[in-house]
Amino acid sequence: MKHHFSSRAASAKRSTIRELLKLTEQPDIISFGGGLPAPETFPHMELAKIAEKLLREESSNVLQYGTTEGSRTLRAEVGKWLAAQGISVSIHEQLVTTASQQGLDLICKAFFDPGDVVFCGLPTYLGAVQAFTLFQVTKIGVPLEDDGMDIDELESRIVVAQREGKKMKGIYTIPDFQNPSGITMSLEKRRQLLEVARAYDLLIFEDNPYGHLRFAGEPIPSIFSMDDEGRTIMLLTFSKVLSAGLRLAVMVARGDLMDVLVRVKQPTDLCTSKLTQMLAARYMQEYGLEKHLAAIRPIYREKKEAMIAALERHMPDEEGLHWTNPDGGLFVWVWLPEGIDTEEMLPRAIASKVAYVPGASSYVDGDGQNTMRLSFSLCTPDQIDEGIRRLAHVVTETIEARKIGARS
Amino acid sequence: MKHHFSSRAASAKRSTIRELLKLTEQPDIISFGGGLPAPETFPHMELAKIAEKLLREESSNVLQYGTTEGSRTLRAEVGKWLAAQGISVSIHEQLVTTASQQGLDLICKAFFDPGDVVFCGLPTYLGAVQAFTLFQVTKIGVPLEDDGMDIDELESRIVVAQREGKKMKGIYTIPDFQNPSGITMSLEKRRQLLEVARAYDLLIFEDNPYGHLRFAGEPIPSIFSMDDEGRTIMLLTFSKVLSAGLRLAVMVARGDLMDVLVRVKQPTDLCTSKLTQMLAARYMQEYGLEKHLAAIRPIYREKKEAMIAALERHMPDEEGLHWTNPDGGLFVWVWLPEGIDTEEMLPRAIASKVAYVPGASSYVDGDGQNTMRLSFSLCTPDQIDEGIRRLAHVVTETIEARKIGARS
Repeated sequence: MKHHFSSRAASAKRSTIRELLKLTEQPDIISFGGGLPAPETFPHMELAKIAEKLLREESSNVLQYGTTEGSRTLRAEVGKWLAAQGISVSIHEQLVTTASQQGLDLICKAFFDPGDVVFCGLPTYLGAVQAFTLFQVTKIGVPLEDDGMDIDELESRIVVAQREGKKMKGIYTIPDFQNPSGITMSLEKRRQLLEVARAYDLLIFEDNPYGHLRFAGEPIPSIFSMDDEGRTIMLLTFSKVLSAGLRLAVMVARGDLMDVLVRVKQPTDLCTSKLTQMLAARYMQEYGLEKHLAAIRPIYREKKEAMIAALERHMPDEEGLHWTNPDGGLFVWVWLPEGIDTEEMLPRAIASKVAYVPGASSYVDGDGQNTMRLSFSLCTPDQIDEGIRRLAHVVTETIEARKIGARS
Repeated sequence: MKHHFSSRAASAKRSTIRELLKLTEQPDIISFGGGLPAPETFPHMELAKIAEKLLREESSNVLQYGTTEGSRTLRAEVGKWLAAQGISVSIHEQLVTTASQQGLDLICKAFFDPGDVVFCGLPTYLGAVQAFTLFQVTKIGVPLEDDGMDIDELESRIVVAQREGKKMKGIYTIPDFQNPSGITMSLEKRRQLLEVARAYDLLIFEDNPYGHLRFAGEPIPSIFSMDDEGRTIMLLTFSKVLSAGLRLAVMVARGDLMDVLVRVKQPTDLCTSKLTQMLAARYMQEYGLEKHLAAIRPIYREKKEAMIAALERHMPDEEGLHWTNPDGGLFVWVWLPEGIDTEEMLPRAIASKVAYVPGASSYVDGDGQNTMRLSFSLCTPDQIDEGIRRLAHVVTETIEARKIGARS
């Protein structure tokens, strides 16, 4: 039946890495692979109470179809929450989505014809790459620096694409504790990014799943909040701050941009679950999301600190071997010496009972072979130390083997 | 910002009918408009108990990401349920979707390039029309007869499309109690449809949201169960048999067809909510879906009988005025005399405190102006009688006004 596949479906491949990582679900493997939130952060007893009450007392609401735009109650709560952060957004500037991955799907549908260009980080979020790829979008990567996307490089790549007559639509960025690198974009670069977007009339897709999981340093304003032209679409999700299993997020955009997103969501899934929407809305009303965030940030901070300490303790002192030290989120990014291929190394790591995500799939230019993503969220500090010890052993062996190979 | 819209987004319009029907949410209007399940059929007390227990005891499962394929527990339960109906489907032949509207989105993604052809009923489900339109699919309508799609007409339209060099992909059909018409396809026509699909190498997209809501007559085997070549994809949903608010459905397909659907779901929304999946799975395990269906079918039967009786009681005896009398589902379809436009008539109906869905938007060939869809699911038998009385009055007036107009 393969002759019936669409041309776009040919591009949608099962990830071999993902298949390999399925092996790492064995209990004796310490996995830094999955980008999952720490389950001990889920306020499950509170959600149990809310769910029971909602289903008992409001079933003809929560078990019925809702509007495409989403629950007004939820949007009002999100509006109040954002207002407290200095971001003014009406309920009409919000679209509830079936998590932020759907937000990316809707962005592709609303703005991208095949061949249109999106600019993104090198590296960037694999799920975004997959969404853009499915819609046959041309992805142009821009290197990241310690303080976010290299804006000069962005501009020069825009100029080249323009010269080549490409239709450029926007820039995809995760400014806070980026997935996969953990890098945060500085305030100055956010300003510059907005200037470039204005100069070349581009949209900005600001994916913000981790911004509220800051456990060190001072918050930096979102690009959306600094944009007075309404060319930024911000994706906020409940996946990391409340629960990933609800599949619940809110897209924020103004004017025409919001209107077209609503129009393309309707044929996509009609509406997001009323039950999951009302679970989040009642949680915000009865318990408060900020209070919850204040309780869970130290959990992530402790894990991150354990990982950085373990890397410092166990990793060999080698030229080119270094890592990020994020102020929030779930991920540490590691560069190994040039020539080491983390995809090739993964089976050896798994044999040593430790797992990670090789970085190359997060690079749209085919680079990144010597990088890897480590997630600290699912392990205890002790497991993190032991896992990094195992990984450092594999890394050391791989580096040594390469030196011997180079000599012979 | 409209110049940034994709060419497909230009086709995604807000439905003016849908906006008009929003007005009908006032309590004094009797609405036969929405295609919503009857809320009194939701087993909310049982779901409240299950939800409370799941969130209390299995939160690190139900509040976490799941696999793209869906919960194995749910797929195992659906497999057992289908086996009891004589349909053998392994868990690997099932994909859990965020309701069947997402199933249609995935079908478009997997199989349709712009301009590819799908055949569908005249009329057919509006949400399917919208999904196909968003993906720039060419929709060719085939008239329905009392026993389903006119297979001779289907074949002659296939021949024409073939002659015109069009790339034909498949046939979209709702064989049981079709939305919007309530028409059921006969066993003989199901066989013929499969023969035609085989002869011209087409896929069959069998949308089956109402098949289990049969309240009269004998069940007819699904096309999927009669297909020994694996060219049929069946969409089953929990929306009408358990709850629409869960946004939960299962697509059933074999071999390569299932594989490509999984691959395009991943970038679409990663996975469907684990919480809603486990709610349905535990409900099936602890209470049984068949038992629930046996309890809710009489509710729909009573409402349908009330509507048919009211139509017979109140509607004028006019040439060309007739309706379907379905054996299941939620809908009765009404044909008014030629020349009456139900879209034009709707504001007068709303002024008389009754609402329906004009039929034209369900016709992909621009026809159907004199048709309307009546849903009996949200009203009591008394409300149905009163609503049809009001509607009959508007219809009578409209017919009389037209006669006077024709004479003058």
